[in-house]
Amino acid sequence: MRIALLGAGTVGGGVIEIVDSAVPSLEVVKILTLPNTYEDPRVTYDIKDIVEDPTIDCVVEAMGGLEPAHSFIMRCLNAGKSVVTANKAVVAAYLPEFSQAASKAGVGFFVEASSGGGIPWIAAIEKARRTDTITQISGILNGTSNYIIYRMATLGASFDEVLKEAQALGYAEADPSADIDGIDVVNKCIIGTTLAFNTLCRRDIPVMGIRNLAKEDLEAFGAMGYGVRLMARATQDGQGYAAAVEPVLVPAASLEANVPDNFNLATLVGNFVGPLKFFGQGAGALPTGDAIVQDLLDCAAGQKPVYPREERLAWKPELLTSSYLVRTQAQDLLPEGAQVQESGLVLLDGLTAVAAAGLCQKLLSQDPTTFMAALATQD
Amino acid sequence: MRIALLGAGTVGGGVIEIVDSAVPSLEVVKILTLPNTYEDPRVTYDIKDIVEDPTIDCVVEAMGGLEPAHSFIMRCLNAGKSVVTANKAVVAAYLPEFSQAASKAGVGFFVEASSGGGIPWIAAIEKARRTDTITQISGILNGTSNYIIYRMATLGASFDEVLKEAQALGYAEADPSADIDGIDVVNKCIIGTTLAFNTLCRRDIPVMGIRNLAKEDLEAFGAMGYGVRLMARATQDGQGYAAAVEPVLVPAASLEANVPDNFNLATLVGNFVGPLKFFGQGAGALPTGDAIVQDLLDCAAGQKPVYPREERLAWKPELLTSSYLVRTQAQDLLPEGAQVQESGLVLLDGLTAVAAAGLCQKLLSQDPTTFMAALATQD
Repeated sequence: MRIALLGAGTVGGGVIEIVDSAVPSLEVVKILTLPNTYEDPRVTYDIKDIVEDPTIDCVVEAMGGLEPAHSFIMRCLNAGKSVVTANKAVVAAYLPEFSQAASKAGVGFFVEASSGGGIPWIAAIEKARRTDTITQISGILNGTSNYIIYRMATLGASFDEVLKEAQALGYAEADPSADIDGIDVVNKCIIGTTLAFNTLCRRDIPVMGIRNLAKEDLEAFGAMGYGVRLMARATQDGQGYAAAVEPVLVPAASLEANVPDNFNLATLVGNFVGPLKFFGQGAGALPTGDAIVQDLLDCAAGQKPVYPREERLAWKPELLTSSYLVRTQAQDLLPEGAQVQESGLVLLDGLTAVAAAGLCQKLLSQDPTTFMAALATQD
Repeated sequence: MRIALLGAGTVGGGVIEIVDSAVPSLEVVKILTLPNTYEDPRVTYDIKDIVEDPTIDCVVEAMGGLEPAHSFIMRCLNAGKSVVTANKAVVAAYLPEFSQAASKAGVGFFVEASSGGGIPWIAAIEKARRTDTITQISGILNGTSNYIIYRMATLGASFDEVLKEAQALGYAEADPSADIDGIDVVNKCIIGTTLAFNTLCRRDIPVMGIRNLAKEDLEAFGAMGYGVRLMARATQDGQGYAAAVEPVLVPAASLEANVPDNFNLATLVGNFVGPLKFFGQGAGALPTGDAIVQDLLDCAAGQKPVYPREERLAWKPELLTSSYLVRTQAQDLLPEGAQVQESGLVLLDGLTAVAAAGLCQKLLSQDPTTFMAALATQD
């Protein structure tokens, strides 16, 4: 199968390395980049060279961001080319439009690499759905934030010290907000929820990040028998669904609390198979490149994944209700029933993720160092 | 697709429940059982009723054991029926014969449910091999032994106490030796190694069990920062391979050391994707039934898995070389260089799994309470 790449950065480079060295049934024939960024005889600077080349069967979008990724994907689909993308933002924003265009053109649209890097997470969801009703998904889906928490916990270091280290290693961007404020995970949560529950997931799900996590918080949680992780969680009951991205307190002996470095761990719960958990590298040239090449092989085999295009289930925030632990100086803003613990942390019972995110915003406006985390319910 | 079941015990019952309630594209039309064991209008007591029924496309073997499972599978394959099996013993013993018969008859032979219960472990290996060279596999693949170790560690209980509890819960057989001596895991290790490395794995791989694990051992390992798990491990270097089943000391903060109850966790390491880990229920009616139904859906879609039939790689025991910790009174039988630790445990460096299993046999003949475990190398 003849392939073109849009973008030859980290992920695009991984795809080229894997295809050129290990998958003779695939051939990268064109690579769209910006001038003077990548040397290769297959480089072009004009999307038209790809859209109008009838010998190209499938296009890999590895540019990231919403535009021009969105319009380039649409042009490729409309020109009858299958598209494989690693771009969580564009998938979370435009999945129904892409799905409809692919279906109209009779081609495939593939999103494995958009969530969980090299972990076959999208494939696991799609496979489980053949036999099971998936009632819950959850996951550590951002390697940068996991790395920060893991290093803080194992070194007893501060957030800022570890963030600097992560930036030096290339794990975190100069502007780390997409990772540490949960925005990156929101996109992955939307994609996973949409596929797992077969309903288009709304885009404005509640989100809280880990920007204010202090090493003293980790010590206090540890003394209570918990670790903390930034997690996507979603649940459904047949009529409705809820989804959120929050710091979650997980038992110290759980798999989640022991995910090291920048790894990811994603969970689905099926009505027959029970909980299944999938661990691996959630980012990086070769793991993410690998996920793209897996999609390319499925594309070459003629697969055409089908995605939900409508919000089939109702939004029911009460399905995601937890106790929360809060560290804040803005205690006069806390609701009735708040219980101050020995550690100084405040316990709130029975809050929906929507209510928790709203409260957190209020608390932050008075105490900008406020940190808040949900207590995991047992699977 | 019209299906017959051989066996209506735990796993067969799970298949019937899932197919009847959730998968309308499949139909269970005949069920072979022993008289007076299962009431259902689809029951037959004669394998001929299935082999000679031309309307049956696929047969699920869920009887267990070598015979008559082996000859029934061969009769079904030779009659042009695809076969799905959950029987690790028969797959480990006869995979090349089944593979050849299936290929000759132009039908499929499927083994997902033979290892890891509901975990899509065989599918994960086969998928990874499309892009990657798998260099290592490992796994906690026996839920009974994991349950025993987990309960011993969390309750501070003795092996015998927990074994009795596991037997009462139905997690362990009256004769638990297949589980606690590693024999069950050996079969799964052979199957995983064969598929991951694309070489028929020899049957006489080294094995040590957990029968002699004492709660004092767990305490000593814990004080050193380790948990212990009964694990299958295999590695290859392009020319040769090695595989073994042993108790392995894993860092207390590893995912392996935190696998609870009777769950399984299996790992593959690919040259591009890196380590991938898969966690779930390794046994039980619905999880294992689920794996069988997944194979049935692949069968209905016309898939025909291809298996290695020859030992393509050389047996190279030195590829699986570890340090070992030993508790034994038979210290005069220990090799030179054995280092006695403060705990009384003896450290041996640089032993192959083959040499370790041989030494363990010798030590057991003099001190039948000897326990020995490998120290995990870092992935």
